[in-house]
Amino acid sequence: MSIIFHDLIGADPARPFSPHCWKVAMALAHKGLPFERNNVCFTKVLEVEGGISKIVPVVRDGTKVVADSFLIADYLEQTYPDRPSLFGGEGGQAMARFIESWSNSTLHTALAGIVMKDIHDVLEPEDQAYFRQSREARMGKKLEQIVEGREAAIAGFSTKLMPLRLTLKAQPWIGGSSPLFADYIVFGALQWARVISSAKLLEEDDPVFDWFERCLDLHDGLGRSVPALS
Amino acid sequence: MSIIFHDLIGADPARPFSPHCWKVAMALAHKGLPFERNNVCFTKVLEVEGGISKIVPVVRDGTKVVADSFLIADYLEQTYPDRPSLFGGEGGQAMARFIESWSNSTLHTALAGIVMKDIHDVLEPEDQAYFRQSREARMGKKLEQIVEGREAAIAGFSTKLMPLRLTLKAQPWIGGSSPLFADYIVFGALQWARVISSAKLLEEDDPVFDWFERCLDLHDGLGRSVPALS
Repeated sequence: MSIIFHDLIGADPARPFSPHCWKVAMALAHKGLPFERNNVCFTKVLEVEGGISKIVPVVRDGTKVVADSFLIADYLEQTYPDRPSLFGGEGGQAMARFIESWSNSTLHTALAGIVMKDIHDVLEPEDQAYFRQSREARMGKKLEQIVEGREAAIAGFSTKLMPLRLTLKAQPWIGGSSPLFADYIVFGALQWARVISSAKLLEEDDPVFDWFERCLDLHDGLGRSVPALS
Repeated sequence: MSIIFHDLIGADPARPFSPHCWKVAMALAHKGLPFERNNVCFTKVLEVEGGISKIVPVVRDGTKVVADSFLIADYLEQTYPDRPSLFGGEGGQAMARFIESWSNSTLHTALAGIVMKDIHDVLEPEDQAYFRQSREARMGKKLEQIVEGREAAIAGFSTKLMPLRLTLKAQPWIGGSSPLFADYIVFGALQWARVISSAKLLEEDDPVFDWFERCLDLHDGLGRSVPALS
């Protein structure tokens, strides 16, 4: 029986965009586990699996339900130890938390100032109202104000990727010689921007651009199956 | 036979300060390997082990000589696999490279603007001349200009540690339930500042402060054996 993967969508069900959901899609594919997407819009998240979580991703594997992208990766690693590892050992599992913390505090923060209005604009009207209210309350300002420095945020985004750029001098993936969940953590952030926004964030001669393209090719082009916003 | 550890010093041989050398000291202690420090000042680095490297740390283990802190950790892990692991598996070894890249590009860059003149001031005159010339050539400005924004750099330093701060919400060490080389990478940067500079970089209610104190306690208080500059 396939794993049920509750994934976030806007008005177009063919363009899932949540960074945390993309991490899970890649993790499931990495483990070679078949899954069925259940499309969920913002205002229906609390109906998922009896309201287990205020946010998606959520997965159901038989009778087991797990929320939170990192906990889902932990669950998959523990439950399917004979399939390709997502962490490459306990040290990698711990350090993936650092990379998640870096991605959240550095990339996501910067991307919020770039894509927040773009997200709003791809939602159905009911979700737009929810999204605007909840995000404006969280950030303490209007969506339009959040993205006021958008052009500067786009111009400055590349420098935030310096730790990844330097890592790629030593090895082809964050996971070393092959990709691990840590790669999908950072991929999720950039895929979010790729699917939801026309902002050009990476130059083509950037090793991070090449790494991202290789991520898009993984698992039969799973990430590339949703075209970039043009 | 003890491992010979070529470590950088200034005028006071009891106050080794190099961040990369501190990583190696902690790694050797982590593996439980006895070592003898060979004190080296800046202008004598090219005399170490026949000029194998332009920088220390360098270690000699019997007939084997290894330079570069990360390559030394790799060597110790490979050569002493039955002693406590420095990486916790291949994934951790790869991701420690990311943490090194983050530390170098974020922490070291910021610390350079804080401690560069402090380093100069603890060196012997001959080393001072070398240090000033080489660093000013590398940075394209005078030492005094490099630290012109020192107070602002000190005030802004704490925010750069956010990825570590968030990680410590999930686990006590970057390595997870116990410290790994990744912890020593970041420890090295903060120990550098602690030994060489009176700048106060961390507030006592910061989880990173607590983590750093726990690092200082490790391996019979190896890091604490050099008092903070007061």
